[in-house]
Amino acid sequence: MSSPSPRTPKPLLLRGARIVTMDAQRRILEGDVLVQGGLIQAVGPSARRPVGPSVLDCRGLVVLPGLIQAHIHLCQTLFRGLADDLPLEAWLERRIWPLEAAHTPESVYWSAMLGAAELLLGGTTAILDMETVRHTASAFEALEEIGLRATAGKCLMDAAPAVSPAALREPTDRALQESADLCERWHGAAGGRLRYCFAPRFAPSCSGPLLRAVSDLAERAGAVVHTHAAETPLELEMVKRATGHDEIAYLDSVGIAGPRAALAHCVWVSPEGVQRLAQQATNIVHCPSSNLKLGSGIAPVPEMLAAGCRVAIGADGAPCNNRLDAFAEMRLAALIQKPRLGPDALPAIEALELATLGGARALGLEREIGSIEVGKLADVIVLDLDGPHAQPAEADLVSRIVYSAQPADVRHVIVEGRVVVRDGVLRTAQLEEIRRAANAQARALIASARLR
Amino acid sequence: MSSPSPRTPKPLLLRGARIVTMDAQRRILEGDVLVQGGLIQAVGPSARRPVGPSVLDCRGLVVLPGLIQAHIHLCQTLFRGLADDLPLEAWLERRIWPLEAAHTPESVYWSAMLGAAELLLGGTTAILDMETVRHTASAFEALEEIGLRATAGKCLMDAAPAVSPAALREPTDRALQESADLCERWHGAAGGRLRYCFAPRFAPSCSGPLLRAVSDLAERAGAVVHTHAAETPLELEMVKRATGHDEIAYLDSVGIAGPRAALAHCVWVSPEGVQRLAQQATNIVHCPSSNLKLGSGIAPVPEMLAAGCRVAIGADGAPCNNRLDAFAEMRLAALIQKPRLGPDALPAIEALELATLGGARALGLEREIGSIEVGKLADVIVLDLDGPHAQPAEADLVSRIVYSAQPADVRHVIVEGRVVVRDGVLRTAQLEEIRRAANAQARALIASARLR
Repeated sequence: MSSPSPRTPKPLLLRGARIVTMDAQRRILEGDVLVQGGLIQAVGPSARRPVGPSVLDCRGLVVLPGLIQAHIHLCQTLFRGLADDLPLEAWLERRIWPLEAAHTPESVYWSAMLGAAELLLGGTTAILDMETVRHTASAFEALEEIGLRATAGKCLMDAAPAVSPAALREPTDRALQESADLCERWHGAAGGRLRYCFAPRFAPSCSGPLLRAVSDLAERAGAVVHTHAAETPLELEMVKRATGHDEIAYLDSVGIAGPRAALAHCVWVSPEGVQRLAQQATNIVHCPSSNLKLGSGIAPVPEMLAAGCRVAIGADGAPCNNRLDAFAEMRLAALIQKPRLGPDALPAIEALELATLGGARALGLEREIGSIEVGKLADVIVLDLDGPHAQPAEADLVSRIVYSAQPADVRHVIVEGRVVVRDGVLRTAQLEEIRRAANAQARALIASARLR
Repeated sequence: MSSPSPRTPKPLLLRGARIVTMDAQRRILEGDVLVQGGLIQAVGPSARRPVGPSVLDCRGLVVLPGLIQAHIHLCQTLFRGLADDLPLEAWLERRIWPLEAAHTPESVYWSAMLGAAELLLGGTTAILDMETVRHTASAFEALEEIGLRATAGKCLMDAAPAVSPAALREPTDRALQESADLCERWHGAAGGRLRYCFAPRFAPSCSGPLLRAVSDLAERAGAVVHTHAAETPLELEMVKRATGHDEIAYLDSVGIAGPRAALAHCVWVSPEGVQRLAQQATNIVHCPSSNLKLGSGIAPVPEMLAAGCRVAIGADGAPCNNRLDAFAEMRLAALIQKPRLGPDALPAIEALELATLGGARALGLEREIGSIEVGKLADVIVLDLDGPHAQPAEADLVSRIVYSAQPADVRHVIVEGRVVVRDGVLRTAQLEEIRRAANAQARALIASARLR
């Protein structure tokens, strides 16, 4: 295990940028961002300059809050491209379950490293991550090492074989005990950069007692509960048959609702369900690429926002995307609503809100991250939008970020004041080592999982 | 005017790649590609090596036919980000018409240079391009200079003011005469790399006599007719009201049908219309990003392919996308069909066919480009898929290209044997000069167009 990432002792000055603050007024400022002790100390033209800060010359560049993806499965990164063009049920049964069951501590570690490297290089600084049922500590070790901000949790499955494969199903008590132990060890680790979440896979694969216990444990620990919900009509039917309830109402009845809950997908939610989610202040995590690729549908995100719901965004796992690219998700979140609701639906600024402020809320960190404001943690990214694909510079800056920018435009990435990507190069791990180890682990998993 | 791009006199050897041939058997070979006189002379493990070829070391890289986008408006590249989140009619009337009317020869030239630079750097080697009504020669000059393969045409509009703004409308005879003159000058220029197309904007903005004359001129010149069709229900209604016909049937009645015609969009085509397009062997150009961003809808591409239609792909103009990225279009073409038809709809290989073989057919160049086969023109691209976002390498190669790859993965780009991008750097023009000039021209256009 590596040492926890230290807060940068030396101040850091991002000099001369255009700063998309995402503050309450959505101000775009010209000037500097001063970082000290991992915190943003000053923003704007008159940033006080301490003696001898480390300086990042950001003239001609754009500074943005680090992007946040609130639904990721790092443990699936090694499965990318191994499960294309399949419906959700076959995708799970024929590919994802056997591959997750084959995971070892080493494969979980390198799967997390591979995914986290892609995320950081592409400007994502924080994630909400659902791991598999085993070896979650290995994912945390990778996250500690590579410097991504992450709230991650062991996946929980204790229900009937039809929806919880034998190779992954656990007794309720053991699943809960291991979760509690992981929470004890990792919630608040790495100086607070790592946090634990309780992560029941989805309602059909979990017993009622497990879900209720999870809700209590999360409440006591001050941790997020992260699960999937309302992804397909089949899932809704299963929950209805088993519990007599609509899935969102059922989750509420077991205590999984409100600001501490983050529900991935929510594609199939009725207008009443949307109202309920808004009243509860439950976090919805929209995954547009995944919902298209698995054929799940299009979540009613503009209706959710109009109702006052809290909405974040995420790439989901690599095999149902196949990118972990926050720019692709923002752009697609805007585009897919327009045939249904008109071209003015979900404009660029709202897509950027999903990936910043919305993500911060889903992680329960809206006071710490999501915007560039004095006192917040210095999770910021620096974009170079000089490429031909982002010209002319006359255009609206938010439009250029949401509709034109791409991961390769990310020049620097800073997490809590630490420069983890500089000039497009990952500084916290060796990319070539990750590539080699990840490929070796992928080969071993494929052999061991005996895919059909 | 610059000199025509010469065929490379010196042979070029792409050594040691994985080669996605897109030949009839869709073979993926390991080996070399030998290029002589702009043509592919050998492909595969035993490529004969001439004395002293220029060698591109492609070990660990992937060689692919150059991507083809069969619906682009280079003249709109300067309008990127200036017309977001508006419905098609307001998008045209408030932004695109006034900006196109404000174009000068210089602004058309730099708009084309900016778009072509983005296209080449992103692996697109050939386009079908609709310019505006004036200054089309300037676009050809840019294309000649920068080395992209292009079939381009002056936009034609001679109909009633409601659908042809006064600032762009021309008398029928003048429009036709200028088209014929441009065709005479540019069709087959730059050693055949540049070709002319006749480009009526869309049926409502053109008179019947103009459309019939265009069809005759194109037939005589052996040129493509490129227009928009069935993009919105409103357009269909306008054609129905004016002509009494369904739009596809109307275009057929004026001679715009069959292998020489390329119809962009075709979102709103009935099953009978799809059958008709298949029987005619008319080229359909699918523009998934544009159809989403303008709220137009989702074209029934899997149904078209099942019916035997010829289908290509394109980014459309920068203001309705806002990328000119063939990778984004391929991925989206696959993804958007899946909620409607299931996750196995339009698998990765079909998306790649749209951007290679389908594009070649739409340009009338299926014997010359679209696959890596001996005797075809050497339009090829070289990808570096070693980035974390395209791992593991165990995955299906076509999946990695369609679902994971991005423009920044393009290492080398070769058009007719000429290396126009090497190690990610454009060699035929100065990017910094393009950026500066394009921004200056954009500022001038915005001032002159008096946008509201």
